[in-house]
Amino acid sequence: MYTAPNQSWEWIDVENPSAEELQDLGQKYGLHPSSVRDCLQPEHLPKYEIANNIVFIITRIYDAKAHIEADTIQELTNKLSIFYHEKFIITVHRFPVDLIPEIVEKYIDTGLIKTPGSLLTRIVRSALRTFDDPAVKLADDLDYYETKTFLQAKPVSLTKGLYHLKRKVAVSKRVLKLSEVILVNMHLQKLSSTELQDLKDLYVHMTTLFDELNDSANHLVNTYISLSSQRTNEVMRVLTIFSVFFMPLTFIVGIYGMNFRFMPELNVWYGYPLVLFMMLLITAVIYVWFRRKGWL
Amino acid sequence: MYTAPNQSWEWIDVENPSAEELQDLGQKYGLHPSSVRDCLQPEHLPKYEIANNIVFIITRIYDAKAHIEADTIQELTNKLSIFYHEKFIITVHRFPVDLIPEIVEKYIDTGLIKTPGSLLTRIVRSALRTFDDPAVKLADDLDYYETKTFLQAKPVSLTKGLYHLKRKVAVSKRVLKLSEVILVNMHLQKLSSTELQDLKDLYVHMTTLFDELNDSANHLVNTYISLSSQRTNEVMRVLTIFSVFFMPLTFIVGIYGMNFRFMPELNVWYGYPLVLFMMLLITAVIYVWFRRKGWL
Amino acid sequence: MYTAPNQSWEWIDVENPSAEELQDLGQKYGLHPSSVRDCLQPEHLPKYEIANNIVFIITRIYDAKAHIEADTIQELTNKLSIFYHEKFIITVHRFPVDLIPEIVEKYIDTGLIKTPGSLLTRIVRSALRTFDDPAVKLADDLDYYETKTFLQAKPVSLTKGLYHLKRKVAVSKRVLKLSEVILVNMHLQKLSSTELQDLKDLYVHMTTLFDELNDSANHLVNTYISLSSQRTNEVMRVLTIFSVFFMPLTFIVGIYGMNFRFMPELNVWYGYPLVLFMMLLITAVIYVWFRRKGWL
Amino acid sequence: MYTAPNQSWEWIDVENPSAEELQDLGQKYGLHPSSVRDCLQPEHLPKYEIANNIVFIITRIYDAKAHIEADTIQELTNKLSIFYHEKFIITVHRFPVDLIPEIVEKYIDTGLIKTPGSLLTRIVRSALRTFDDPAVKLADDLDYYETKTFLQAKPVSLTKGLYHLKRKVAVSKRVLKLSEVILVNMHLQKLSSTELQDLKDLYVHMTTLFDELNDSANHLVNTYISLSSQRTNEVMRVLTIFSVFFMPLTFIVGIYGMNFRFMPELNVWYGYPLVLFMMLLITAVIYVWFRRKGWL
Amino acid sequence: MYTAPNQSWEWIDVENPSAEELQDLGQKYGLHPSSVRDCLQPEHLPKYEIANNIVFIITRIYDAKAHIEADTIQELTNKLSIFYHEKFIITVHRFPVDLIPEIVEKYIDTGLIKTPGSLLTRIVRSALRTFDDPAVKLADDLDYYETKTFLQAKPVSLTKGLYHLKRKVAVSKRVLKLSEVILVNMHLQKLSSTELQDLKDLYVHMTTLFDELNDSANHLVNTYISLSSQRTNEVMRVLTIFSVFFMPLTFIVGIYGMNFRFMPELNVWYGYPLVLFMMLLITAVIYVWFRRKGWL
Ligand SMILES: [Mg+2]
Ligand SMILES: [Mg+2]
Ligand SMILES: [Mg+2]
Ligand SMILES: [Mg+2]
Ligand SMILES: [Mg+2]
Ligand SMILES: [Mg+2]
Ligand SMILES: [Mg+2]
Ligand SMILES: [Mg+2]
Ligand SMILES: [Mg+2]
Ligand SMILES: [Mg+2]
Ligand SMILES: [Mg+2]
Ligand SMILES: [Mg+2]
Ligand SMILES: [Mg+2]
Ligand SMILES: [Mg+2]
Ligand SMILES: [Mg+2]
Ligand SMILES: [Mg+2]
Ligand SMILES: [Mg+2]
Ligand SMILES: [Mg+2]
Ligand SMILES: [Mg+2]
Ligand SMILES: [Mg+2]
Ligand SMILES: [Mg+2]
Ligand SMILES: [Mg+2]
Ligand SMILES: [Mg+2]
Ligand SMILES: [Mg+2]
Ligand SMILES: [Mg+2]
Ligand SMILES: [Mg+2]
Ligand SMILES: [Mg+2]
Ligand SMILES: [Mg+2]
Ligand SMILES: [Mg+2]
Ligand SMILES: [Mg+2]
Ligand SMILES: [Mg+2]
Repeated sequence: MYTAPNQSWEWIDVENPSAEELQDLGQKYGLHPSSVRDCLQPEHLPKYEIANNIVFIITRIYDAKAHIEADTIQELTNKLSIFYHEKFIITVHRFPVDLIPEIVEKYIDTGLIKTPGSLLTRIVRSALRTFDDPAVKLADDLDYYETKTFLQAKPVSLTKGLYHLKRKVAVSKRVLKLSEVILVNMHLQKLSSTELQDLKDLYVHMTTLFDELNDSANHLVNTYISLSSQRTNEVMRVLTIFSVFFMPLTFIVGIYGMNFRFMPELNVWYGYPLVLFMMLLITAVIYVWFRRKGWL
Repeated sequence: MYTAPNQSWEWIDVENPSAEELQDLGQKYGLHPSSVRDCLQPEHLPKYEIANNIVFIITRIYDAKAHIEADTIQELTNKLSIFYHEKFIITVHRFPVDLIPEIVEKYIDTGLIKTPGSLLTRIVRSALRTFDDPAVKLADDLDYYETKTFLQAKPVSLTKGLYHLKRKVAVSKRVLKLSEVILVNMHLQKLSSTELQDLKDLYVHMTTLFDELNDSANHLVNTYISLSSQRTNEVMRVLTIFSVFFMPLTFIVGIYGMNFRFMPELNVWYGYPLVLFMMLLITAVIYVWFRRKGWL
Repeated sequence: MYTAPNQSWEWIDVENPSAEELQDLGQKYGLHPSSVRDCLQPEHLPKYEIANNIVFIITRIYDAKAHIEADTIQELTNKLSIFYHEKFIITVHRFPVDLIPEIVEKYIDTGLIKTPGSLLTRIVRSALRTFDDPAVKLADDLDYYETKTFLQAKPVSLTKGLYHLKRKVAVSKRVLKLSEVILVNMHLQKLSSTELQDLKDLYVHMTTLFDELNDSANHLVNTYISLSSQRTNEVMRVLTIFSVFFMPLTFIVGIYGMNFRFMPELNVWYGYPLVLFMMLLITAVIYVWFRRKGWL
Repeated sequence: MYTAPNQSWEWIDVENPSAEELQDLGQKYGLHPSSVRDCLQPEHLPKYEIANNIVFIITRIYDAKAHIEADTIQELTNKLSIFYHEKFIITVHRFPVDLIPEIVEKYIDTGLIKTPGSLLTRIVRSALRTFDDPAVKLADDLDYYETKTFLQAKPVSLTKGLYHLKRKVAVSKRVLKLSEVILVNMHLQKLSSTELQDLKDLYVHMTTLFDELNDSANHLVNTYISLSSQRTNEVMRVLTIFSVFFMPLTFIVGIYGMNFRFMPELNVWYGYPLVLFMMLLITAVIYVWFRRKGWL
Repeated sequence: MYTAPNQSWEWIDVENPSAEELQDLGQKYGLHPSSVRDCLQPEHLPKYEIANNIVFIITRIYDAKAHIEADTIQELTNKLSIFYHEKFIITVHRFPVDLIPEIVEKYIDTGLIKTPGSLLTRIVRSALRTFDDPAVKLADDLDYYETKTFLQAKPVSLTKGLYHLKRKVAVSKRVLKLSEVILVNMHLQKLSSTELQDLKDLYVHMTTLFDELNDSANHLVNTYISLSSQRTNEVMRVLTIFSVFFMPLTFIVGIYGMNFRFMPELNVWYGYPLVLFMMLLITAVIYVWFRRKGWL
């Protein structure tokens, strides 16, 4: 348990607390039991609530160490809970969160942040910022898959890779969208309006980024499927070429396989070579025709 | 029939009234007969109307107990009618509505709501909020179907499931869109502007949520169809492989089935084994060719 | 010819006038000849014009009695012309228009409308409102076709029905879009700004409704085509199954149809049953293979 | 060379000037040489520039007489250059421009336009308006192609027609988009703000119209391609029907074409009719099966 | 190293500096070491930062000389770093940048720019403007590929060309989007608001241009794939025609190839010609049928 005391207010940061520790803290600071309960639930979605005159916020921050196949909000993001009051800020999280020491170093130690309100805005801002690097990374991944989709010669399946990419984008987008409730409500608090405006600008920027990533991912999936189904053409062409060459020939040999007693062609010595020559001719005609069509 | 009396105004909540009960109530409070008629019609779409100086609103609330195959506004949502006057609010509904006791407990009993205007805003707000949980649920369902669409090995039909999902999203979206008329008109009443602004923010948030769910559902349907039609490739490949292997062979055996009297190959002892060997050779050549193409 | 005299101004409603009647009226009220000419042209698109200090407006109202295959602006909507001046309003239309008697009853007879400006706003508003019921009807039709598209077992063609539906939506959307010119220009007149604001809100609401109907219709057409082309899979599967079963068998019987003099198999008594058995075996192997693939 | 003198300023309209004429004019009025050069270049894109304290604008107006296969900005639109100064307006164009005499008649001769600023706004407005009729015409063409796409029985190629239509829409859209630079800069001049607002409204209206035409054209191209590829179904069905009917039959006749010495069926008198009957039976079974599937 | 001294401030432009030169400069002007480090990194994305009271901006300018297959931000754009302080502006770049001498000539030498703030706005503006010509060029390329897609007779692959085009558009779009951070932060500086407003207008214009190019590129890729997969129809048709013609014929010759002892047809003199005539008849019937279907 780490405490950052300031003049007239304090910041309590709690990492991976047990249920008892949290309940003790809750009683000491007058936190509402239902908020404390939400605090313990790792899958909780973003939330903003005022209870016992204390603002309770749940944000979700992008987990840079998430498994490559993470495809739910819970797998891809971690929860960071914030209790905000005029006299204190309490942050609760299960795993170490890089943004906490960063804020301490850059804003608390330097005295740049003077009020709990400023600190709250800063924490929410930093939480949003955790989606910044993933956005760049996901854009690069999209480019990689796009290059493979368009330029690779061999038909290697990208379905799974594209699925996980698309999902990371969609999940991030949804978390951001669900976080809107926090921003919308924060403007009701007596917070600095320029700090809030900056936060909103950042939010709009982030959602725009992920909206576009989402569009691009959707589009790439479509293009990938279309391009791979375009390969049916090649298969069809081969099938058609073989059929068109062999069907007439097989028909002709069928004719001379008939058992009619009176078939004059069968009895002349040049019957067999003539038929072979005819079939060669037919093959040549079809070949020329296919060439003209550009199928061969 | 339940009544929540307040200082200078009252709230009458009526559950599943008979036509007579409602008409009596209408006469007592001076409600317009046409409004009372609308009140009795369970399929009525959202509406805002002023008659006899009384505001009459029809909202539709998401029915959490709707059948899984519900795919119309009427099946998926229930009607909640509201009469609003300076001196009273009357709410009418057929089935128990969770939001009524919730508002009573949280806002009436605590005295937080002081005017019929505040109560009206609160009821409309809670009605909108009934779409909140379904939004999360439908997003999860979409993710489930997306995972199945991309990653399942066996070709199981998702058409029906996707249809019902897509329909729930579209119906919710449409109800919200049709409810706009209520919000647009409410600003004409002398209601608290901050409460109204909050309501509008919530409305925009909800419609955005369902717009995006709708987009995602549409996109998933497209992707599902595309991916399953991609399986035609596999079928085509098998067809083509068989055709290309057997067509030349069948042609060759056809040749030696011809009945020409003069076919020298037929009379030598090594004719039959030679033809068999030739066919083996052709098979091998085709096999190697297909291997190179990556079809085998 | 119907006249609704009011204190200091009058409303002249003219139904299906002859050219002469209209020209007489034009001369009496000082209407510009070119406006009178436009008035007589039933296919005219929405328009706003000031001539001789008189505002001349052409609106188009949805024709509830339009043929089910109506697919142009002219077939689906009727023209309603309005001349607006401080001292009079003249409305001209070919067919009976329900909104005229409605306005008379609700607003003129009750004295709710006091100025020609209010009447003008009301008429334009009612003209827009004629698209309200069709919007609900078209949404229901879309749902009907969506259900058929996704859930029907038999491949019945929906192309024609979808075309007429899509067209009705697109035409309505375009009429509304073209009517924008009326709203944009009306704000220049000295009209009540709250009435105008209401009119604009209604306009935005209507265009949004039809934009979404248009999106949905487009999407449904795409889905219908995709889903019906997905049925090619089924056809392909049957074709492939037959080909793969019969191609090897036909090849084998071809072998023993060859006329080589020296084919030992032909002369043993068990040759025929052995070949029959071999073919049965091959059939069984293919059957098992197809089963595993899930094609049978 | 035509001159419209007004009280304190003049309008010089120049049609198809030679390079020398234009340079003389440039020197007389102090036009910047680079502007004069741009003026002579018929393919120049829309532009706004201030040089020597004179505003130089290049607009492009829709050429109603453009060839039906016109598909570039230069082929579809003509250039109209405008020099604007407090004391004069100079318009330069290669071909006769209908809007010039129209403005002279309606606004100059009637004295409605009093300042060069008003005239400038009016000219730009009229230039924008030249896209009005094409918008209606293109919408009608789209409808025509949509009808053909959905309802025509015979598979006639619409690719070329759709291409030229789509291109006209896209080119118009792009010219309008590139003209934005003119509107954005005009608000810096001391022009009447109501006139400018009207101009902006018109601009937004025009771009919206063409955005929607562009969407519809793109959508129609997609639908046309999808619907024509849907015809593959019909071809597939015929292919499959023939294959499924003839494959088993061809196999059976192949069996009795084998040359085994011991095939008891071959030697009984009823062998041939029995096989014929069997094949008839198989044909009937397949026929019934196809009927049930709805393929026949 | 080039210096443009002005009254009370100076502009230092540094081209392709060594690490040491830059560090010396950094020490002389009090630049933050981390900014200097970013300055040396050629792949850095757009950035805005205040350190040591000095604004540090990284912009990326379109590289007109980029390789035709450039498809990353780094390949397609070059970095231009700017340090801004009340008393100086320092610009750092690796390669010659055309916009620097242009600004010197047009704005510094003419004395039009009087403050470092104006200069900063001008540089950022010119950096944005480098995307102007590429936008026109890319639009022309899109038109070229669109024409080829729709009108070319021979099936030449456009996949690679379209990929590189699409990528250039997407990369430009992303650079612009990432540059938003610069504009959003610049308004915090005490810069001329009209200059800033112009810059913002330009930014919106540029992003709109590239959004639309991106849409068009995506759409063209889709259309190209669809149209080339439409060619499967042609292949299918040929396959089906051959199959339908030859399958019945091959079946008939198979019948008379059977070895039944009792086949009366085989022993009459007119058996063979009759069968040949029958097959001709069948061929004729199929031909007529196909003609009617429009397949021949
Ligand atoms: Mg999403
Ligand atoms: Mg995008
Ligand atoms: Mg999308
Ligand atoms: Mg994109
Ligand atoms: Mg993209
Ligand atoms: Mg797209
Ligand atoms: Mg698409
Ligand atoms: Mg919908
Ligand atoms: Mg979306
Ligand atoms: Mg998704
Ligand atoms: Mg989405
Ligand atoms: Mg999504
Ligand atoms: Mg349309
Ligand atoms: Mg449209
Ligand atoms: Mg929609
Ligand atoms: Mg839908
Ligand atoms: Mg939709
Ligand atoms: Mg929908
Ligand atoms: Mg689409
Ligand atoms: Mg699609
Ligand atoms: Mg375009
Ligand atoms: Mg284009
Ligand atoms: Mg549209
Ligand atoms: Mg569309
Ligand atoms: Mg349309
Ligand atoms: Mg599209
Ligand atoms: Mg991309
Ligand atoms: Mg992009
Ligand atoms: Mg676009
Ligand atoms: Mg476009
Ligand atoms: Mg386009």
